[in-house]
Amino acid sequence: MSRVVCFGEIMGRLNPEGYLRIGQARKFELSFAGGEANVAVSLANYGIDVAYVTKLPKNDLAKSVVRELRGYGVDVSHIAYGGDRLGMYYVEKGASQRPSKVIYDRKYSSISTAKREDFDWDAIFEGAQWFHFTGITPALSDGCVDICRDALKAAKAKELTISCDLNYRKNLWSSEKAGKVMAELMGDVDLCIANEEDAEKVFGIKADDTDISGGRLSREGYINVARQLTDRFGFKMVAITLRGSISASDNDWGAMLYVDGQSYFSRNYRIHIVDRVGGGDSFVGALIFALLSDYDTQRAVEFAAAASCLKHTIEFDFNQVTVDEVEKLMGGDGSGRVQR
Amino acid sequence: MSRVVCFGEIMGRLNPEGYLRIGQARKFELSFAGGEANVAVSLANYGIDVAYVTKLPKNDLAKSVVRELRGYGVDVSHIAYGGDRLGMYYVEKGASQRPSKVIYDRKYSSISTAKREDFDWDAIFEGAQWFHFTGITPALSDGCVDICRDALKAAKAKELTISCDLNYRKNLWSSEKAGKVMAELMGDVDLCIANEEDAEKVFGIKADDTDISGGRLSREGYINVARQLTDRFGFKMVAITLRGSISASDNDWGAMLYVDGQSYFSRNYRIHIVDRVGGGDSFVGALIFALLSDYDTQRAVEFAAAASCLKHTIEFDFNQVTVDEVEKLMGGDGSGRVQR
Amino acid sequence: MSRVVCFGEIMGRLNPEGYLRIGQARKFELSFAGGEANVAVSLANYGIDVAYVTKLPKNDLAKSVVRELRGYGVDVSHIAYGGDRLGMYYVEKGASQRPSKVIYDRKYSSISTAKREDFDWDAIFEGAQWFHFTGITPALSDGCVDICRDALKAAKAKELTISCDLNYRKNLWSSEKAGKVMAELMGDVDLCIANEEDAEKVFGIKADDTDISGGRLSREGYINVARQLTDRFGFKMVAITLRGSISASDNDWGAMLYVDGQSYFSRNYRIHIVDRVGGGDSFVGALIFALLSDYDTQRAVEFAAAASCLKHTIEFDFNQVTVDEVEKLMGGDGSGRVQR
Amino acid sequence: MSRVVCFGEIMGRLNPEGYLRIGQARKFELSFAGGEANVAVSLANYGIDVAYVTKLPKNDLAKSVVRELRGYGVDVSHIAYGGDRLGMYYVEKGASQRPSKVIYDRKYSSISTAKREDFDWDAIFEGAQWFHFTGITPALSDGCVDICRDALKAAKAKELTISCDLNYRKNLWSSEKAGKVMAELMGDVDLCIANEEDAEKVFGIKADDTDISGGRLSREGYINVARQLTDRFGFKMVAITLRGSISASDNDWGAMLYVDGQSYFSRNYRIHIVDRVGGGDSFVGALIFALLSDYDTQRAVEFAAAASCLKHTIEFDFNQVTVDEVEKLMGGDGSGRVQR
Amino acid sequence: MSRVVCFGEIMGRLNPEGYLRIGQARKFELSFAGGEANVAVSLANYGIDVAYVTKLPKNDLAKSVVRELRGYGVDVSHIAYGGDRLGMYYVEKGASQRPSKVIYDRKYSSISTAKREDFDWDAIFEGAQWFHFTGITPALSDGCVDICRDALKAAKAKELTISCDLNYRKNLWSSEKAGKVMAELMGDVDLCIANEEDAEKVFGIKADDTDISGGRLSREGYINVARQLTDRFGFKMVAITLRGSISASDNDWGAMLYVDGQSYFSRNYRIHIVDRVGGGDSFVGALIFALLSDYDTQRAVEFAAAASCLKHTIEFDFNQVTVDEVEKLMGGDGSGRVQR
Amino acid sequence: MSRVVCFGEIMGRLNPEGYLRIGQARKFELSFAGGEANVAVSLANYGIDVAYVTKLPKNDLAKSVVRELRGYGVDVSHIAYGGDRLGMYYVEKGASQRPSKVIYDRKYSSISTAKREDFDWDAIFEGAQWFHFTGITPALSDGCVDICRDALKAAKAKELTISCDLNYRKNLWSSEKAGKVMAELMGDVDLCIANEEDAEKVFGIKADDTDISGGRLSREGYINVARQLTDRFGFKMVAITLRGSISASDNDWGAMLYVDGQSYFSRNYRIHIVDRVGGGDSFVGALIFALLSDYDTQRAVEFAAAASCLKHTIEFDFNQVTVDEVEKLMGGDGSGRVQR
Repeated sequence: MSRVVCFGEIMGRLNPEGYLRIGQARKFELSFAGGEANVAVSLANYGIDVAYVTKLPKNDLAKSVVRELRGYGVDVSHIAYGGDRLGMYYVEKGASQRPSKVIYDRKYSSISTAKREDFDWDAIFEGAQWFHFTGITPALSDGCVDICRDALKAAKAKELTISCDLNYRKNLWSSEKAGKVMAELMGDVDLCIANEEDAEKVFGIKADDTDISGGRLSREGYINVARQLTDRFGFKMVAITLRGSISASDNDWGAMLYVDGQSYFSRNYRIHIVDRVGGGDSFVGALIFALLSDYDTQRAVEFAAAASCLKHTIEFDFNQVTVDEVEKLMGGDGSGRVQR
Repeated sequence: MSRVVCFGEIMGRLNPEGYLRIGQARKFELSFAGGEANVAVSLANYGIDVAYVTKLPKNDLAKSVVRELRGYGVDVSHIAYGGDRLGMYYVEKGASQRPSKVIYDRKYSSISTAKREDFDWDAIFEGAQWFHFTGITPALSDGCVDICRDALKAAKAKELTISCDLNYRKNLWSSEKAGKVMAELMGDVDLCIANEEDAEKVFGIKADDTDISGGRLSREGYINVARQLTDRFGFKMVAITLRGSISASDNDWGAMLYVDGQSYFSRNYRIHIVDRVGGGDSFVGALIFALLSDYDTQRAVEFAAAASCLKHTIEFDFNQVTVDEVEKLMGGDGSGRVQR
Repeated sequence: MSRVVCFGEIMGRLNPEGYLRIGQARKFELSFAGGEANVAVSLANYGIDVAYVTKLPKNDLAKSVVRELRGYGVDVSHIAYGGDRLGMYYVEKGASQRPSKVIYDRKYSSISTAKREDFDWDAIFEGAQWFHFTGITPALSDGCVDICRDALKAAKAKELTISCDLNYRKNLWSSEKAGKVMAELMGDVDLCIANEEDAEKVFGIKADDTDISGGRLSREGYINVARQLTDRFGFKMVAITLRGSISASDNDWGAMLYVDGQSYFSRNYRIHIVDRVGGGDSFVGALIFALLSDYDTQRAVEFAAAASCLKHTIEFDFNQVTVDEVEKLMGGDGSGRVQR
Repeated sequence: MSRVVCFGEIMGRLNPEGYLRIGQARKFELSFAGGEANVAVSLANYGIDVAYVTKLPKNDLAKSVVRELRGYGVDVSHIAYGGDRLGMYYVEKGASQRPSKVIYDRKYSSISTAKREDFDWDAIFEGAQWFHFTGITPALSDGCVDICRDALKAAKAKELTISCDLNYRKNLWSSEKAGKVMAELMGDVDLCIANEEDAEKVFGIKADDTDISGGRLSREGYINVARQLTDRFGFKMVAITLRGSISASDNDWGAMLYVDGQSYFSRNYRIHIVDRVGGGDSFVGALIFALLSDYDTQRAVEFAAAASCLKHTIEFDFNQVTVDEVEKLMGGDGSGRVQR
Repeated sequence: MSRVVCFGEIMGRLNPEGYLRIGQARKFELSFAGGEANVAVSLANYGIDVAYVTKLPKNDLAKSVVRELRGYGVDVSHIAYGGDRLGMYYVEKGASQRPSKVIYDRKYSSISTAKREDFDWDAIFEGAQWFHFTGITPALSDGCVDICRDALKAAKAKELTISCDLNYRKNLWSSEKAGKVMAELMGDVDLCIANEEDAEKVFGIKADDTDISGGRLSREGYINVARQLTDRFGFKMVAITLRGSISASDNDWGAMLYVDGQSYFSRNYRIHIVDRVGGGDSFVGALIFALLSDYDTQRAVEFAAAASCLKHTIEFDFNQVTVDEVEKLMGGDGSGRVQR
Repeated sequence: MSRVVCFGEIMGRLNPEGYLRIGQARKFELSFAGGEANVAVSLANYGIDVAYVTKLPKNDLAKSVVRELRGYGVDVSHIAYGGDRLGMYYVEKGASQRPSKVIYDRKYSSISTAKREDFDWDAIFEGAQWFHFTGITPALSDGCVDICRDALKAAKAKELTISCDLNYRKNLWSSEKAGKVMAELMGDVDLCIANEEDAEKVFGIKADDTDISGGRLSREGYINVARQLTDRFGFKMVAITLRGSISASDNDWGAMLYVDGQSYFSRNYRIHIVDRVGGGDSFVGALIFALLSDYDTQRAVEFAAAASCLKHTIEFDFNQVTVDEVEKLMGGDGSGRVQR
C-alpha cells in the first residue's frame, strides 16, 4: 500500500452553533483542522496509509488532536511535542450575501516555533511514496521555511512524489515574501495545486486579458495560468479548483488538471453549502488518492471534484465520505434520493 | 365521525443534530415513526378518530411511543405487548449532492415477531370505516403476512375501505417475494398508493417507452402505470406521488389520483427541504382525510399534495399541520409571508 | 455626535431551535426584540449615541433586557420601571412553503399599561437630534397614544427630526382605529417608513390600477403610494421597503426613498433567509444612520437596503453588522467568499 | 376503576439549563405544570382514570399542553377554551445556600379570567369518585372562587370525596383574603393537605409553644396543627408534609397523616435534590392513589412520602415513577444500586 | 512493552441528558462501552499496548466504534465483521434514592451470533502477555462460550496471564447456567475479579454468617469469599471490589486483593457520583496495568481503587485519567483543589 | 457615588458542558473572566460605578468582551486596543476526588504585551476613590510590572485606596520573582487580600508551628499570617479567605479581616459547589463594596464571605447576586427554600 506523509499545522476550530455570528455565540463546537491535516484525513478515509507530521504542545487539547487523527487511522507517531500552544481559529458560517468569516488565533503555536531538529525526515519518509505540504506552512515562520527545505530535500532524495497547495494567506505573509519563498520551494514539487487568486498573489501569474470575460476566467484562462506555472517551475501536473461564488449559500464548483500540456476539466457542480471550509483540501486529498490509485487523468479530476463537492455538504473541515459515495456522484447521481 | 385503523411497525428514529453524518454525531434526537404510524398521526391531527395497531416490547422506550401517539389523540388501546425490542432507525440528513441516509436496526422487533393471536381484528375494527397498511408490514416476516391476511379478511367482512401504500423496501425482501405476497394481498385493496419505482420493483409494471423522455416519466407515463395497476388488481383508486429529486436540498413534488379511468394531477411544488422522510406517508394521511371528508377528486389530490409539500418543511416523520394551513397553501399562498 | 431617541416596547422572544414548530419544541432560545428596540441596536452598532425609552417590570427578565441593551451601548437611563410583565412573543421559523409564525403574548405588558407621568420627555430629549417610533406603540393602548402625543410635542418643540414606521399590526387594533390615530400623529413626522400593505391598511392609500401588474406593484406603483402619503401628510421623506416573498426561504428585497418628488431605488437582493424577523427595522436603523451621516439620498437607500439584506442572514431580531460590512455589500460584493 | 377530577391552572414552565440563573440564560426548557395538574399526571401514571379541568387560550402553546396531558392518559375533554393567554413561570434551580427562585408570569391567564359558565360540573363529575383542587385556584381571581364554589357544590351533591391542598401563595392574595375564602371552601373538604406554614398563613393555626424546639416543630407540633385543623373544619383526614431544608441541594422529607385522632408518620428521607418543584403535589397524587387503592393508613403515608421523595430526583414538575418503583423504596431500598 | 488482549462485546450507549428519565428524553448522547472494552481503553490510556477483539456489523455505527477505540490507541486489527447489529443500551442516571437504570437492547448483536471461525486466536495472541474477558461474554450465546473456550486454550498454550471478571448478568442467563459454564472456564484463569454478589450468584459462594453484621460483609467476610474462590478454582489472585451504596448519588468504594492467602485492602473512598457505570471495569483496567508494571500488591490495589474512584466522577463508561492523576489521589490528595 | 478602577487581564473562558473532561468535549461554553474583571462585575452588580482597564485585540471576540462588561454596567471607555490576541483559558469542572483543572492559553495576550503609553492613569483615575489589582497582572510581563508601578504612583497621588489580591500563579512566574516584584508594589497598598498559600509562596510568610494542627491552620495561624503581612508592609487591612477543600464537590468557606491588630472572622459555610472558579474574586468585590458602603468590619467580612459563598453556586466566574440576596444569607437563611 502507498504511504503518504503530510506536514503542517493542525489547529482547534471553534464554531458558533448554526448561523450565529461569533459575537452572538456562547456555545462553540470544537473540531480540529489544518490545510494538510484535512488532506491526511481524506486519505485515511479512502484507505491510504498516511502519516501526519506537526508539532503540538503538551496539554489536553493536543491529546484530543492526537486521538482524533489516530481515530481516523492517521499515523501520529512522528508528531513532535513542545512549545506554547495549539493554534486556534474561529469560523462563523456565512449565508446568502453574508460571507463566512474566519478569525485566526494561531500566532505562537507550537508548530510555528518548531525547530529543524524536531523532525527526522529520513525516519519520517521511511516507506513513503508521497509528500504533501501547503503554502501555509512556510508562511508560519522562518523556522518553518527551513523545516520545509529539509523535508523537501529528504523527500527528493528518497524519490517521493511531492505535492504543494499554494494556499496563499495574506494574514501570514506578504505577496512579496510568499513569492520569494515559494518560488524556491517549488523546485522539487511535482504536483502544484492552486486557484487563479493564489497564482496571482504568490507568483504574479495572471491569465491573458483575452481569457477573461465579465471579470471571470474562461476555460482558456485557467489553461493559460496552468501553462505559465508549468513553464516557470516545471511541474508535472497542475491542478486548479474552479469556484464560482454565487453567494455564501450557493457555489459553483469544479476543477481542472493540466498534464503534459493537456487540460482535463471536471463536471461542474452547483452546490447548496453546509460548510465550505476545507473544500479545497478535500479536493487535494481525493486527487492524491486518485493518482496513487492510478486513475486515468480525467477520472482523477472527476473523482477529486466530486469528493470536494460532497465536502461542501459536511460540517467541519474533514471530509467524511467513502470512495463509493464519491464514485456514485461521479457517475451522475446527484439527485440526493434517500439511501436506505 | 369516521374511524380509521392503521396497522404496522412504529420505530424509534435517531437523528444526528443538523447536517452531521451519523459517524460524526454524539448527540441524537429521538423521535418515533413508521409508515403507517405517520399516516395515523396525520389523520389524528386533522381530527379523525384513528387507532394504531402494532406490537411493542414492555420497556420505557415503548412507553414513550405510547405516550407520543396518545398525545396526538391516536387510540392506543389495541396495541399488543411483548417480544424483544423496539425497532430503531438512524436518519442522516442529506444536503445538496449528498443524499439522506437511513440505517435500519429493526430486525427482531416485537412487531416482526408478532403472532396472529396477538390481534383480535373483529374487536379492532369495531366501528371503523377504513383500514390502512403498507407493503412494509408484510415484508417484516411471514408472521406479519399472516396477520395482514387476517386483518384484510376481517376488514373486508366489515366492509371497510382498504388502502395500501406499496412502499417497497429492498432491505426487507426481494422483488420476487414482494411481488408474490403483495399480489395476493392486493385483492381486497380499494386504494393503492405507489410511485413508479414501487410499481416496477413489486409488480414489474412499467410505463410504455413512449411515455418516458429523458429518463423521466411524462404525465402519460404515470397514467399508464396507474391504468396497468388498476387493470391487474381492480383498484377503485390509484394514487401516485411525483417526486423530482433535484438534489437532497431541493425537490419537485406533486401527485396524481387515478379514478375510473380519469387522472387528476395536483399542482407541482418546488420544495426547499427541511426533512423529507415521511413525506409520502403525509400524502397518504391527507388523502385518506380528504376522501373521508368527501372532497371531490381534484380537491383531494390537491389537499394531499399540499399537505405533503408542507411535511417536507417539518422536522421528523410526523406531519404537523392543520387543515387550515394546508388549505391556505392549496389556495395558492406559498409565499411564506410571516403569519402574525 | 448625533443622539437618537427610540420609544416603544421591547419583548422577550422565544424561538424553538432550528425549524421545529412551536408545538414540537421543548427548548427555546430567548432573545429580546421590539420594533423600535431593533432600530436602537442597529444605530448603536453603527456608533450612534442612542437612548431607548420603554417601561419594564421589576424582575430578572427585565434586568436581562437592560443588560442586553446596555451591552450594545444603548443608553438605558430613561427606562421606566413598574407594571406587571414583560411582553413575550414566540417565533417559529418557516421554510419553503411553510410561513414563519409569530404568537404574541404581549397583553398587559408594562409599557402597554404605562402612564404619561412615567416619562419626562424634556429630559429624555436633552441633546437629541432624532426621535423614532412605530405604529406598534400607539396600538398598544390609549395610554400609549397619549404618551406618543407627549413625546411628539416635546420632540417638535426641540426641533428633532421625527421618523415613524407605520408597522400595522392587525392583532393590536383595527384599520379604522389605526387610521384615525396614526393620521393625527403623522402631523409632526418628517420621515415615514412603510410598505404598500401598511399604507393601505392604515390610510387606505393604494397605488393606481395602472401601476399594478400580475398582482404586484410596479416601480411606478411604489412612487404613487409615496406621493399620496407625502401629499396627505407633508412628509419630507418616505421610505418604502420592497419585499418579494418567493417562499419562506427565499425573498427578494430592496427599497425606495422618495424625497422632494424624486424616487431613489436601491439594488434588489435575492436573499436565502436565515431569520427575517426584524428585517424592516434593520432597514430603518441603517437609514437613520445614513441620513445622520449625511449620505446622499441614493447612497442612503443603498446602505439601508444592503444592511437589511444582511439582517436576513442573522439570527434573532437585532442586526449584527458593521458599517464596513454593509458598504462592502453595497459595493457589489455579495459573493459570500470567506473573509479570513 | 376510580375516576378523579382535578381542577386548576396549568402553566408553561421555563427553566434555564442546569444551574444558570435566569439572568444568565439564553436557552430555556419548556415543560408544563400546575399544582393540580401535577397531581393529575401522578394519578394517570399510577393507572388512575383522571380528568383535568382548566381553561386554555386557543393557540399552539395550549395545544402542546393538551398533547402533553393526553399523552400521560389524562382526560382533556372537559377543558374550556378562550381567554388571552397561558400562564407562564420561570424556575431557576438553586444549589447549596442559593435558593431556587420562581418568577410567575401568570396574570391574565385564561383560567384566571374564566367564568362560571365555562364549566358544566354535573357533566364533568359524571362517574367520578374524587375531586381535587388547591388553594392556588381560588387565589387566581374572584371568578375562580365562584367556580370553585360551583364545583364543590356539585361534587358534594354527587358524594365525591374532596381533597384540597392549602398551598398558600403570597403573590396571589393576602393571608386575610385567603383565610376568609378558604375557610368557606373547607366546609365540604374531606382531606386537607397542608404544611405548617400554610396552616399559619391561611388560618392562623400554630402549634403550641411547647411543641417547638430550636425553631422547628416536634412530632407533637405537627399533630397539634392537624388536630386544630380537624377541630375547626371537620376534616376526615389531614396530611402534612415535613420538609427540613438543609440547603437548596439537600432536604429532609417525610409526612404525617392524621385520621380519627391518630397520627401516622412516614419514614424520613434525606434527599439530594434534582428538582424539588412539584414535590408536594407528587405527595398528594400518590396519597390519593393510595387511598383510592385502599392502602391502610400507614402504608398510604409511606407510599406518598416515598413517591414524593423520588419526585425530588426528577426534572420538571411531573412525577415520573411507577407504583413498583415507589414500593421498592418504601420497602427500604434507597441504596440506588443500578437497575439492569 | 506488555501487550494485553481483551475480548467481548462493545455496545452503543445512549444517555438522556443530565438526570432526565428515558421516558422524558428526546436528546440522547451516544458513547461506546462494554465490560472488556472499558478495560481495554483504561489500559490504552495508561500506555499499555492493547488489542480489542469483538465482532461488529458493517455499518456507520460500527465505524464510529472502531474510530473511537483506535483514537484511544487500541489495536482494532483483529475485530471481525458481519452479523446483524451493534448491541445498544440505554442508561438513565439515578440520583439520591432513585437508582440508575439500564435498558439493554443487545439481543442478536453481531458478537452474540459470532462463530468460532471468526477469530484466529493464535494470530490474535501473537506477542501478548495477558488475556482478559468477563462473565458477560459467555453469557451472550453458546457460540460465545465456544469462542471463549478456544481463546482460553490458545492463551494457555501461549502462557498468557488470564483474568476474568465474573460480572453476573441476570438478564443474560440463569445462575445455574452461569455456574456451570463459568466453573469450566475458570480452570485457566489466574486473576478472578468479583464482588460478593457475583460470587454468590454464579458459584453459590457466601461468606460465613459470622462475617456478616447488619447485612453487610466485614473485612473477614470478603477474605472468606476470596479464600473459597481460590480453594475451589486455584486462582493466583482474587480481586474484590467493595461498594457501599449509600444512595445513587453517594457511594463508598474500595477494594481487596487476595494473594497467597494474604489480603490487601485499599483505602476507602466516599464518592459523590457523576457516572458510576463502568466503575468496576476501570478497577480491572487499572489493576492489570499495575500488575503488568510490577507494582507491589498493596500499591496495586491502591492504584486500582484510586483509578476507579476517579472513574465515578467521569461521564460515560471509559475511564479518562492519567497515571499521574491516579497516583496523586493514591498519595492522599483527594481534596479537589483546582489544578492550574 | 464611589468610583472604583480595576486593572488587569480579561480572558475568554471555555468550559466543556457539565462534568466532561476537556479531552472528551466537543461543545464548549464561552464566558469571560479575569481576576480583576470578576471584581469589577461584582461591584457593578452591587451598584458601584466601576471602570475596567485592560488591553484587548481588535477582533470580534474582544467586541464580545466589551459588550459583556458594558452590559453589567462596567465603564469600558479606558480599555486600550491593539496587540495579537485575547487570552483564553479552559476550565474542566471537577467532582468529588477529581479536582477542577484549568489550562491557560494566555501567552502573548494583548494585555501581556501592553506598553506604559497605552494607559493615561491620570485620566483613568479622574473621580475615582479606589484602585484594585491582583498579583496576576504584574506576573504577565515586565511591561505589566511597569504599568502597575505607573498606576500605583498615580493612584497614590490622587489618594485612592488601593487593594491588591496576591493571587500567586506558578505558571506565570517563580516565587522568587513574585516575591521581589510584589514586595515593591505592596508599598502603596492599603488592603491586601491573600490566602495562607499565597502568603507563603510570594513572601515566605508562614504561621508559627504552634498554629498548625493536623496540617491545617488554626484561627491563631491566620491571625499570625495577617500580623506578619501587616508588620512587613504596613497594610491598613488584611483579608484572608479560609477554604477547606473537602473534595472538588464540597468545600468549607469563610474569611477573616485583620484590622488594627484585631481579627474578625466570618461564619463558616459548608458549600456544595456548582462552580468555584472566581470564588476568591467575588469575595474581594463584595468586600470592597462593603468597605465603600461603610459597613462595620464584622459586617463587611460577613457580607464578603456570604457573597462569595453564593458565587460557588453560580456558573462561570462572574458573581450574579444582589445585595439583598447576600444579606439574606448573612442573616442566617441558608436553607435554600424556594423563593416565589
